Amino acid sequence: MSNHIYKHIELTGTSPISYDQAIKNAVERAAKTVHNMRWFEVIDTRGHIEEGKVSHWQVSIKVGFTLDEA
Amino acid sequence: MSNHIYKHIELTGTSPISYDQAIKNAVERAAKTVHNMRWFEVIDTRGHIEEGKVSHWQVSIKVGFTLDEA
Amino acid sequence: MSNHIYKHIELTGTSPISYDQAIKNAVERAAKTVHNMRWFEVIDTRGHIEEGKVSHWQVSIKVGFTLDEA
Amino acid sequence: MSNHIYKHIELTGTSPISYDQAIKNAVERAAKTVHNMRWFEVIDTRGHIEEGKVSHWQVSIKVGFTLDEA
Amino acid sequence: MSNHIYKHIELTGTSPISYDQAIKNAVERAAKTVHNMRWFEVIDTRGHIEEGKVSHWQVSIKVGFTLDEA
Amino acid sequence: MSNHIYKHIELTGTSPISYDQAIKNAVERAAKTVHNMRWFEVIDTRGHIEEGKVSHWQVSIKVGFTLDEA
Amino acid sequence: MSNHIYKHIELTGTSPISYDQAIKNAVERAAKTVHNMRWFEVIDTRGHIEEGKVSHWQVSIKVGFTLDEA
Amino acid sequence: MSNHIYKHIELTGTSPISYDQAIKNAVERAAKTVHNMRWFEVIDTRGHIEEGKVSHWQVSIKVGFTLDEA
Amino acid sequence: MSNHIYKHIELTGTSPISYDQAIKNAVERAAKTVHNMRWFEVIDTRGHIEEGKVSHWQVSIKVGFTLDEA
Amino acid sequence: MSNHIYKHIELTGTSPISYDQAIKNAVERAAKTVHNMRWFEVIDTRGHIEEGKVSHWQVSIKVGFTLDEA
Amino acid sequence: MSNHIYKHIELTGTSPISYDQAIKNAVERAAKTVHNMRWFEVIDTRGHIEEGKVSHWQVSIKVGFTLDEA
Amino acid sequence: MSNHIYKHIELTGTSPISYDQAIKNAVERAAKTVHNMRWFEVIDTRGHIEEGKVSHWQVSIKVGFTLDEA
Repeated sequence: MSNHIYKHIELTGTSPISYDQAIKNAVERAAKTVHNMRWFEVIDTRGHIEEGKVSHWQVSIKVGFTLDEA
Repeated sequence: MSNHIYKHIELTGTSPISYDQAIKNAVERAAKTVHNMRWFEVIDTRGHIEEGKVSHWQVSIKVGFTLDEA
Repeated sequence: MSNHIYKHIELTGTSPISYDQAIKNAVERAAKTVHNMRWFEVIDTRGHIEEGKVSHWQVSIKVGFTLDEA
Repeated sequence: MSNHIYKHIELTGTSPISYDQAIKNAVERAAKTVHNMRWFEVIDTRGHIEEGKVSHWQVSIKVGFTLDEA
Repeated sequence: MSNHIYKHIELTGTSPISYDQAIKNAVERAAKTVHNMRWFEVIDTRGHIEEGKVSHWQVSIKVGFTLDEA
Repeated sequence: MSNHIYKHIELTGTSPISYDQAIKNAVERAAKTVHNMRWFEVIDTRGHIEEGKVSHWQVSIKVGFTLDEA
Repeated sequence: MSNHIYKHIELTGTSPISYDQAIKNAVERAAKTVHNMRWFEVIDTRGHIEEGKVSHWQVSIKVGFTLDEA
Repeated sequence: MSNHIYKHIELTGTSPISYDQAIKNAVERAAKTVHNMRWFEVIDTRGHIEEGKVSHWQVSIKVGFTLDEA
Repeated sequence: MSNHIYKHIELTGTSPISYDQAIKNAVERAAKTVHNMRWFEVIDTRGHIEEGKVSHWQVSIKVGFTLDEA
Repeated sequence: MSNHIYKHIELTGTSPISYDQAIKNAVERAAKTVHNMRWFEVIDTRGHIEEGKVSHWQVSIKVGFTLDEA
Repeated sequence: MSNHIYKHIELTGTSPISYDQAIKNAVERAAKTVHNMRWFEVIDTRGHIEEGKVSHWQVSIKVGFTLDEA
Repeated sequence: MSNHIYKHIELTGTSPISYDQAIKNAVERAAKTVHNMRWFEVIDTRGHIEEGKVSHWQVSIKVGFTLDEA
């Protein structure tokens, strides 16, 4: 219950499969280098179209994580 | 075809499973006390992250329902 | 790598099944008459509610396609 | 001149006649159950089209009313 | 109740008379070439001033119409 | 067709009668001191409610006028 | 950790003293009738001016509270 | 209860002390030349940082005042 | 001075040279098939980066043109 | 480093030559009557089209200037 | 007066005490690792409510700092 | 064509010369430490005024770059 400070980063995840999966891919890739991630917020949903079909979902998210209280 | 009046309420639904399910959960919970719901509009999509993975989807929606013509 | 020009059109796709499917329906229906579609962007997510459940997803998208370099 | 608190509700009024009338209909219907309404703000103006003509105006408003100082 | 797809177009109607009439003029002019229009949404309200008086209303609307299920 | 420069001012007009009249009142009052007004744009539509009815329309507009080429 | 659903309400708090106090007044007044409030978000900050000084702060907030899982 | 017209001006107040004080400074400075100010609305909150601390608050506000009914 | 109706289209122009040229390219390409274009409005400015330098400007504009009074 | 107060004005500059020049024209014209201008912010970029080409750039800016500490 | 480049980061500061303190906490924590911070801008103001009272302020800010001219 | 993830950073470039140059300066300075930059988007255009003339352009951009698939 101390005075936490959060930092936000912005990412775009992509997936050929689904909207949900594009977000999960962004979060899981970021987890390799960022610790203590707490929340995300969707800021933009886009995608590529090839031959008349949705080929990739591209979802931009803002992610918040706790800064250590150095 | 008379002069309908609609009231809007705003809800946040959550789900560990998917974006779509978070919306369905909010609508179905609201249906227990609100009748004559007609439409929803998504106003914000967020979620919690635990151990580097999406743990909960949180989707805020505005719901419109018909007021009885008292 | 020449100076491409893109035109945008705006569509609403609907689906009783899912958010993703509503977008796919809009893109695939547009493909019957529009060629060279390259990307989409979601601008609004709504839906109908019947008997206390989500009955239809309605997703509005902006679609960009290449104009032939006449 | 004490510390008033206001609550806001959101409504959509409709009218086959005019923009102004759709707003008046929403306010007058709400007055049947809400007291002490003080102001409104227009948040969205839409309408239905039938046979190439405007058939209904749909205006969404936010209404503020005073909470009793319980 | 099938999977309808809607296309949107954007128009500006003008009228020396009133706000409502500017919208009606846009809808009725569009009806000469576009069929199956279902709804409109106001996106911008402007006007011209001449000799210190409002001389023309200019209202921009987005109009949605059903695409035939080809 | 020279390089005109415009200045904008922002006003709120009120009227017990109608939305259109509130805008006209603002423009006509401003015309007493500002010359060369060319256009307006609506930025906010509000109103007062008294005894369950709309008592005053309050419409905020931005007005542009030509600066003399001093 | 179950599937919570939140409802949002919108309030304007006022205070002659400060911005912070206007928010506290809104939250504490709402607490008399709403239980399980969890968060607020500021949506608009305004105030009255009398005799050339700020006389009242008016802060509009959105408040979220947990719906019982009926 | 006549048809008042309001004009808006936009100001940025600064203060080394607090957010509230920056707003008060803007209002009180404007009062030296503008009469009949009635309300303000915050449009932007910024500040300067010097040596890792907030050194000045900069708050931009819109102020409305009554035009005399000339 | 009759009741003109305008239609809007949305385009993205690109140019390796400049922001201004990307807009000019969009307008001049559209002029091959659209007549009576009157104004444009910039809605988005983006670009591609290659090898650490801006390689292409991409500017999205809305263009308005007069519909013939059929 | 005292408590400066800034006032903002809004202008539209035009130029047949370029985006940058339209802004410079607005600033330089305003400098004839307004002193102590410090910054500008672009709020809208539009233009006229004649015979299928950009004929005039119209850029609206907000300009801030220091009020004397009377 | 050379060509400075600034980078922006986004932070959320929290405080049980006040809005102002939440911002100061974010700036002072960031100062432990980021040098040359110059300005901040508030982008979102939220808070937690416990037992019917504001328990924590959460203010999200964007902070700009100078990049060394490497 | 694998599942790329992009990270966004936000920068302000400045230039005494032009709008375009301010953007190029930001991109080229960032290229000294960030690799694989792919796109930019303009989010804000401002500038300084000295002695009644534009003295510096300040353009804020969001830049996206590919994260290595670690």
